Amino acid sequence: MRRTLFTEDHEAFRELARDFIEKEVVPAYPQWEEAGRMPRETFAKLGATGMMGMAIPEEYGGGGQPDYRYNVVLQEEAARALVTLSTVRTQLEVILPYFLHYASEEQRKRWFPGLADGTLLTAVAMTEPGTGSDLAGVRTTARLDGDHYVLNGAKTFITGGMQADLVIVVARTSTDPDNRRRGLTLLVVEDGMAGFERGRELEKMGCKVQDTAELSFTDVRVPVTNRLGEEGEAFSYLGHNLPQERLTVAVGSVAQARSAIHAAIEYTKTRKAFGTPVASFQNTKFELAACSAEVEAAQAMLDQAVGEHVTGELSGADAARVKLFCTEMQARVIDRCLQLFGGYGYMMEYPIARLYTDARVARIYAGTSEVMKVIIAKSLGL
Amino acid sequence: MRRTLFTEDHEAFRELARDFIEKEVVPAYPQWEEAGRMPRETFAKLGATGMMGMAIPEEYGGGGQPDYRYNVVLQEEAARALVTLSTVRTQLEVILPYFLHYASEEQRKRWFPGLADGTLLTAVAMTEPGTGSDLAGVRTTARLDGDHYVLNGAKTFITGGMQADLVIVVARTSTDPDNRRRGLTLLVVEDGMAGFERGRELEKMGCKVQDTAELSFTDVRVPVTNRLGEEGEAFSYLGHNLPQERLTVAVGSVAQARSAIHAAIEYTKTRKAFGTPVASFQNTKFELAACSAEVEAAQAMLDQAVGEHVTGELSGADAARVKLFCTEMQARVIDRCLQLFGGYGYMMEYPIARLYTDARVARIYAGTSEVMKVIIAKSLGL
Amino acid sequence: MRRTLFTEDHEAFRELARDFIEKEVVPAYPQWEEAGRMPRETFAKLGATGMMGMAIPEEYGGGGQPDYRYNVVLQEEAARALVTLSTVRTQLEVILPYFLHYASEEQRKRWFPGLADGTLLTAVAMTEPGTGSDLAGVRTTARLDGDHYVLNGAKTFITGGMQADLVIVVARTSTDPDNRRRGLTLLVVEDGMAGFERGRELEKMGCKVQDTAELSFTDVRVPVTNRLGEEGEAFSYLGHNLPQERLTVAVGSVAQARSAIHAAIEYTKTRKAFGTPVASFQNTKFELAACSAEVEAAQAMLDQAVGEHVTGELSGADAARVKLFCTEMQARVIDRCLQLFGGYGYMMEYPIARLYTDARVARIYAGTSEVMKVIIAKSLGL
Amino acid sequence: MRRTLFTEDHEAFRELARDFIEKEVVPAYPQWEEAGRMPRETFAKLGATGMMGMAIPEEYGGGGQPDYRYNVVLQEEAARALVTLSTVRTQLEVILPYFLHYASEEQRKRWFPGLADGTLLTAVAMTEPGTGSDLAGVRTTARLDGDHYVLNGAKTFITGGMQADLVIVVARTSTDPDNRRRGLTLLVVEDGMAGFERGRELEKMGCKVQDTAELSFTDVRVPVTNRLGEEGEAFSYLGHNLPQERLTVAVGSVAQARSAIHAAIEYTKTRKAFGTPVASFQNTKFELAACSAEVEAAQAMLDQAVGEHVTGELSGADAARVKLFCTEMQARVIDRCLQLFGGYGYMMEYPIARLYTDARVARIYAGTSEVMKVIIAKSLGL
Repeated sequence: MRRTLFTEDHEAFRELARDFIEKEVVPAYPQWEEAGRMPRETFAKLGATGMMGMAIPEEYGGGGQPDYRYNVVLQEEAARALVTLSTVRTQLEVILPYFLHYASEEQRKRWFPGLADGTLLTAVAMTEPGTGSDLAGVRTTARLDGDHYVLNGAKTFITGGMQADLVIVVARTSTDPDNRRRGLTLLVVEDGMAGFERGRELEKMGCKVQDTAELSFTDVRVPVTNRLGEEGEAFSYLGHNLPQERLTVAVGSVAQARSAIHAAIEYTKTRKAFGTPVASFQNTKFELAACSAEVEAAQAMLDQAVGEHVTGELSGADAARVKLFCTEMQARVIDRCLQLFGGYGYMMEYPIARLYTDARVARIYAGTSEVMKVIIAKSLGL
Repeated sequence: MRRTLFTEDHEAFRELARDFIEKEVVPAYPQWEEAGRMPRETFAKLGATGMMGMAIPEEYGGGGQPDYRYNVVLQEEAARALVTLSTVRTQLEVILPYFLHYASEEQRKRWFPGLADGTLLTAVAMTEPGTGSDLAGVRTTARLDGDHYVLNGAKTFITGGMQADLVIVVARTSTDPDNRRRGLTLLVVEDGMAGFERGRELEKMGCKVQDTAELSFTDVRVPVTNRLGEEGEAFSYLGHNLPQERLTVAVGSVAQARSAIHAAIEYTKTRKAFGTPVASFQNTKFELAACSAEVEAAQAMLDQAVGEHVTGELSGADAARVKLFCTEMQARVIDRCLQLFGGYGYMMEYPIARLYTDARVARIYAGTSEVMKVIIAKSLGL
Repeated sequence: MRRTLFTEDHEAFRELARDFIEKEVVPAYPQWEEAGRMPRETFAKLGATGMMGMAIPEEYGGGGQPDYRYNVVLQEEAARALVTLSTVRTQLEVILPYFLHYASEEQRKRWFPGLADGTLLTAVAMTEPGTGSDLAGVRTTARLDGDHYVLNGAKTFITGGMQADLVIVVARTSTDPDNRRRGLTLLVVEDGMAGFERGRELEKMGCKVQDTAELSFTDVRVPVTNRLGEEGEAFSYLGHNLPQERLTVAVGSVAQARSAIHAAIEYTKTRKAFGTPVASFQNTKFELAACSAEVEAAQAMLDQAVGEHVTGELSGADAARVKLFCTEMQARVIDRCLQLFGGYGYMMEYPIARLYTDARVARIYAGTSEVMKVIIAKSLGL
Repeated sequence: MRRTLFTEDHEAFRELARDFIEKEVVPAYPQWEEAGRMPRETFAKLGATGMMGMAIPEEYGGGGQPDYRYNVVLQEEAARALVTLSTVRTQLEVILPYFLHYASEEQRKRWFPGLADGTLLTAVAMTEPGTGSDLAGVRTTARLDGDHYVLNGAKTFITGGMQADLVIVVARTSTDPDNRRRGLTLLVVEDGMAGFERGRELEKMGCKVQDTAELSFTDVRVPVTNRLGEEGEAFSYLGHNLPQERLTVAVGSVAQARSAIHAAIEYTKTRKAFGTPVASFQNTKFELAACSAEVEAAQAMLDQAVGEHVTGELSGADAARVKLFCTEMQARVIDRCLQLFGGYGYMMEYPIARLYTDARVARIYAGTSEVMKVIIAKSLGL
């Protein structure tokens, strides 16, 4: 169906992105998968094109275009080329908003240029071993000592944690048992600070071109000037960005499901079984037709949600609906497409296999499907 | 999610429709179900409000607003009140377009006033016993004899056939075996013409407030002035209106699925099981949340399609995607909602039971889900 | 797959049943659907063949064969002929066990002959308006007054309630708030007792050849000699028969799903679409193949459960697994089969439409799918 | 539910297997995953216990127990311990049957002792690049030249191909275009034969403890004494073993699905979310209950099929039904179980992640779900 979301500016950006991905990402991708990450130079090259800093004000070296649709375009073009852009997505859609909203003027000057040019890599450290995504259970502490916080604790599942120059750590600054939520604060830990260590790199089922790390903090002295926003406000800050975090997952889900259909169409047209192209079987046609209808429904819902997000009208419950539907759709569609590849669908050299293993996390991260249902149910008065 | 489809005019019409349905339809509905149809007076009352003739030019007594969105509003308001408007939907969305597009000036003068004021009821007779919806197999014949066609044949599955004053019959006027499609013509048979008989009324699983009839034609003399459009053009005429026929089914599917969720929320909040409201069980919440996400995806897709239809841009393949997705969604959602009613869900006095039996036809009529897949697959180059 | 459940005796019984159904049931079935029940004479004819009393001791006129597999055969043969045997199933599988297990010698003499020869029709009245199947909420009371109980209350959803000569009523004989379960007693109310009234007959979505009634009891004097079993033991009695009640639903589900496949195979082989038999489409083949695999899985599970039930080894949790799986399977399979009928699948003259509406209750009665899951989860230690 | 498939002998074997797996497999498994195979010593150790040669006649060093149920036990115990036994399954269930049925007396003496003691590893090379599993398309040729065949061609997707000492190669010995099936012959190529080369090891999504290789044959001189069975009979030989190949996949599917449920129960009982164990949420209970019902249905079907296979009565169509249902069930169940692990389910250190990636191939190899449907549909007369 027709899409009405994008302007000419977005389409120009799309060409830029497509071109970059084709030249800089696709050829190198197999090595990155081996290495488990995208090299720092590529972040910098991406920065040089302006794509890392679109949303950052011009005065700090950015593009001054805080328009979420550029992020959408970037993800779509990556999916179109059957790759992902490693932690770029996390940096732009999950982490950058904290800096944009809560950085002080001094911090802006210090960090924005590096964020814009792709030389500063970031991560956000929320989850802890044993407590999962329940912020009320955060046990990492930050005790104020003069003009420093003394940070102690351990974090896990940190996307991009091995490469990050700056890690936004959620720490407990007050232990008032009556209000466990108000006691949380965001501190920016920098690479090289004493006591900040990176532990194991976790092996994941998919998403191979981005690392997932364990981090530990032992008496790390973090200057108060590295506090992001106000003390005790982390819970509210984190909640504020959740709709976008969920939307971004949905954007990837729809774009990747669409790519899976394209890949399956191409494959089944050339591949023969029992003397005829697989594409000529009615089952192949019906499977792909059903997938196509699902993707278009998801796309329509998603585009509407992106439009509302751009104007600030997207509710948390609708973001949850979009994430739930789009990620569940992605799972169904990619599974059906993979099946059409037969044995080749199980071989990692076929991108459909990677799409499949990548997809499994979409129903889990940024809030599981179950958490989405809790949120939606509340909005229904249940 | 927010809907942007409607203007103030549509919302004013919505109030009119809601009011009418509440006063004229809801109280009488159980009797109509018993009788298997809506009484002629109600069509006329609906005509008096202007709702039957919105799309008909003002000079013939209509509203002069050929805007498909009024039809959407009417269906939505019926679903909202947990009723259907009998054959009104068929008349406005499936049959009226033939009259609007192909009626001659003389025919317009003859029929439009009655169509607009709700005193002329209509049906379209396409399907024949044994050939189904395959137009190439039509065996009803019309032989030209002077200024009349002599019509012979039998039709089945005719929605509204028992009440219709005018029946558009698809007949074969040429038996050229090389072009079975070009040989079809539309003739308007009128109530009372000699040789036109109504046979059995078919008993359906649901859709109880509309009749489905068998019709037979034995040497019916139909004046040439009752031919709709050109001789031999029926195949192209029928194909032209198919996207709208499919869209209208999807409109009903989404509106009814939404109503089912509302009904289930209300029911489960008051109904107790083992001492607690059914709505308080996590399973209830999760089921309804999942349903809600599905309905919103369908609504977004549908609204986009309606918008494209209004501007004449909706492709046949996209109409097929919309029908496929929305009707399959309706089936899943209403089944899950019904389950939450326990034993009451099986009792016809609960509207959810009617929604369930009504829904089963949506995946079948106006082209089955399988036919939709054939159309979509073609558009994918398969 | 091969079935090993039955002996030659069962197969002989099968022929008897098949013959009876073909001659006495199939031709009359449309009228019974109209009437909403099977006529009393048919129960008596069925009794005359010995099929009503297989499980009743010979000394009271029965067959002396309390072997559950005869019930299985009877249901299978009905499903095979695309009919149901009205309340015979309820009488034999749900109600008769109470009489067999708990009737006193005097009661056996009084009632068993009539149960065996099909002249005494029965019902069990458990559910009440507003409390559903939660026995703890029963509000019907029976106060002992000399050698009678005085019964007051209302019951609903009573299968066979309109025709029943004997109704086993679950009533509260003690209002000790500490033990609401121990206060329940079974009383046999007889047709004609003063104060016993039959209310509305509820209109159901399907299962048209059996009535579902509301019953009311106003100061009905029930002799103590009509008490079934001990006072205060109803809760345990009712629980004891639950696995069989669930198994019997599963037996019907599997047999009807199998019949749906047969019907769809026959239909699609003769029906043409676009010039070829519907059966020749790959989609048709794949749909029916998938259905066939599901039915065989269900059959294997069910046969194993029936075998265990015959030897008294079937656990309540396994009965729940069987009911859950078989009824959910039935819903999926019959829906897919119906779709292959196109428009005819929606017409009640095609048995597939009846199979569809009949099937919807299977996931609800004798404990909903949700209740089954509660039971299974407990058995998993959850 | 109770299983009746096994005797005391099988249960004794089960303890042996369980013990071996616990001591020799589980501790070493992570290294094997790294290495992509099980070391030769472990095959030999397994041989020493007698488990490799159960089905081989005693006179050649085997156990003389050609009872398929021992294979079932072995797979179940591996799944129970959340591991797989690499290519042992392929060797015992797919390849050994060819040797047992078609080896000459001389070949038996030559190879059976090594097969029994686990020192001879094997593979079967059927699939070729571009033709998939369609035997009619085999292009590898074997030209008779005196007492040798000269073998030329390439094979792919060869399970165990990197380690195999003996490779059964399907080659074309006659190019009669009228009967492409009769022209196929089985030749045993030995490690070290000139011209036999192992190519790339293919990277798979899962099944990491077994290699999948490309093999090539350039003028390999294979002595006629290495021909297995008669010339031109390969097609019939291969077809003969297909039901067992499919059954063995189903055995693994059911055992692994069951293991997934156990793992999820244990995990959710200890893991807390929002302060309560995940196992205490109704959604968790319902998901696991639904999975449990599915696994028991599959198990009942499978056990019945294994019983029929042992007595030689299992039809090819029923084997297809079993494979279709059990592998589709496995996919559904493991996906649902994984979801209950949240983020941990995506980490390869949790066996559920490995179960998930291993499972995806089950619907593909030994005949895809689509091929199973073709077979089943034929048996239904479609």
